[in-house]
Amino acid sequence: MTESSSKTEYLVGVDFGGTKILAGVFTNSLRCLGTAKSSTKAERGPEAVVERIARCVQDAVDECDLSLKQIKGIGLGAPGAVDPETGTVIFAPNLQWEDVPLKKDLEKHLGIPVFLENDGNICTLGVYEAELDSKPRHVFGIFIGTGIGGGLILDGKLYSGFNRTAGEVGHMVLQVGGPKCGCGNKGCFEALASRSALFRRVQSAVKDGQKTVLTEMLGDDLNDLRSGDLRKAIRRGDKFVERIVEEAAEYIGIAVANVVNLLSPEVVILGGGVIDALEDEMLAIIVETFQDYVLPGTGKGIEIRASKLGDQAGIVGAAVLARRRTR
Amino acid sequence: MTESSSKTEYLVGVDFGGTKILAGVFTNSLRCLGTAKSSTKAERGPEAVVERIARCVQDAVDECDLSLKQIKGIGLGAPGAVDPETGTVIFAPNLQWEDVPLKKDLEKHLGIPVFLENDGNICTLGVYEAELDSKPRHVFGIFIGTGIGGGLILDGKLYSGFNRTAGEVGHMVLQVGGPKCGCGNKGCFEALASRSALFRRVQSAVKDGQKTVLTEMLGDDLNDLRSGDLRKAIRRGDKFVERIVEEAAEYIGIAVANVVNLLSPEVVILGGGVIDALEDEMLAIIVETFQDYVLPGTGKGIEIRASKLGDQAGIVGAAVLARRRTR
Repeated sequence: MTESSSKTEYLVGVDFGGTKILAGVFTNSLRCLGTAKSSTKAERGPEAVVERIARCVQDAVDECDLSLKQIKGIGLGAPGAVDPETGTVIFAPNLQWEDVPLKKDLEKHLGIPVFLENDGNICTLGVYEAELDSKPRHVFGIFIGTGIGGGLILDGKLYSGFNRTAGEVGHMVLQVGGPKCGCGNKGCFEALASRSALFRRVQSAVKDGQKTVLTEMLGDDLNDLRSGDLRKAIRRGDKFVERIVEEAAEYIGIAVANVVNLLSPEVVILGGGVIDALEDEMLAIIVETFQDYVLPGTGKGIEIRASKLGDQAGIVGAAVLARRRTR
Repeated sequence: MTESSSKTEYLVGVDFGGTKILAGVFTNSLRCLGTAKSSTKAERGPEAVVERIARCVQDAVDECDLSLKQIKGIGLGAPGAVDPETGTVIFAPNLQWEDVPLKKDLEKHLGIPVFLENDGNICTLGVYEAELDSKPRHVFGIFIGTGIGGGLILDGKLYSGFNRTAGEVGHMVLQVGGPKCGCGNKGCFEALASRSALFRRVQSAVKDGQKTVLTEMLGDDLNDLRSGDLRKAIRRGDKFVERIVEEAAEYIGIAVANVVNLLSPEVVILGGGVIDALEDEMLAIIVETFQDYVLPGTGKGIEIRASKLGDQAGIVGAAVLARRRTR
């Protein structure tokens, strides 16, 4: 072991949701040394999930030939409303958690300071530190995967508002009476443009007899459909899939315009698995639709950019949080 | 003239839009001593409008038996994007203005310091100072009249974002492909729930043969329709008008939920002529719809309240601005 690697100067970033836990080990300059992944098993309850997070952190550290003693701090993004001061998950509907003292419990397991934030905020923070060199004052992040999350940086700082729940752009209603959303309402942005929404539209059209190269690629049930398959189908000339992806991009552009009309951020970041897989197909349509819908003059100079961090935005942001808090 | 009234301790607040100018004279403790009103005549161009604003200020001051020398500062709310530092109206589509140095021009006319802000921000500031004694940290104001404007107070300060245009809640799309809005898009909040939207719906239904007591009250063309007439019709048992007002209240509730999901303010203020006239008919429906649409848990403790300032919110807020800046 070299002298420098024996110092406690590494950071761990953890991102976890309803289905999986991802942990990454980072240097102080945010270079990722290695990661580990596990399933969440939320149905086993908070205690079991905390243990699984602890084990995932240990696996990632071990993967990098390091020991827990060398870790300065752990940042953690959780899918729900979070009190960053006390480190409590106030509520997380996807996990069915309420008032879980996650920071305290995880520190007990690992003996290292833990810092907690909402996952949308964490992803925004990650892209902000890793990709936005100009350090704009006001940034809004929109992350489109299975669901749609968001985060806000105002005056260079994470903003979470009165109930610490700001940034829930996925449940902004864009289409009163529109398709049903997981939250129970209708017409939410998430029900119109998330991966689940895209897949649902594809699968229901196929059931109704729609022809697509996707069934040639994956079989009639389309069970293993992924965002990347939509890209492949479009590149093979599938107009049906192209139209569905275009429609989603239009909804995203309208959502961006709504956010800009309300908040006038300097930069809007787009990220998450859907953007990662379909940036080339979507970004130009998103920007064009945004320009159609933003009030004249109010979109001037505002940058809409796709993050290159992909699935790593969460762990990078969590490492940034740990770095900020342990400085 | 008493000694105290000879001091330069009064404030003037001005609110102007596409159709009218309203000026009010206030004591330092925000008591309104008198007002004056005039039409804007926007079609005559910026120079003429500046002169009309100056005359309206003079009329208000004269009405209170004061002279301009006794005015410490003038606050001004303008309908558009404003640079509060330079006092320039960057653009105001309703006036067809672009880069008008309103502060400088008006100071030339009146010889008194002028302070400029966007009108949605100004109204929010007015309600904040005059009605919110607890001084909450984060407040969102929604003002529903001919159009719909908004304003944001974050951490106790007006927030206008990168392009100084934040708060444009009226052009948040709630219904993709919905009714046409004055801004050129479809399905904006303003096209669904403003006074113009309500009146358009009433008038078009009447043209299609709908029976309503409104035509008994005002004649078949309904040219002089006002928000208060809708209230009167509902109180006389008109189910058609009741349904139209209910629908607008539901859209307002959804808009409030969108804002709370995004920003989690502590208080949402509702104001403007429509709320002023129809609070009793709308507020309970707005709150109920809001609770249906806000994410579980995220609406906890958030207050939705109707302002009592009515049409005066703008001049009160403008006076508050002048007071803050001349302290």
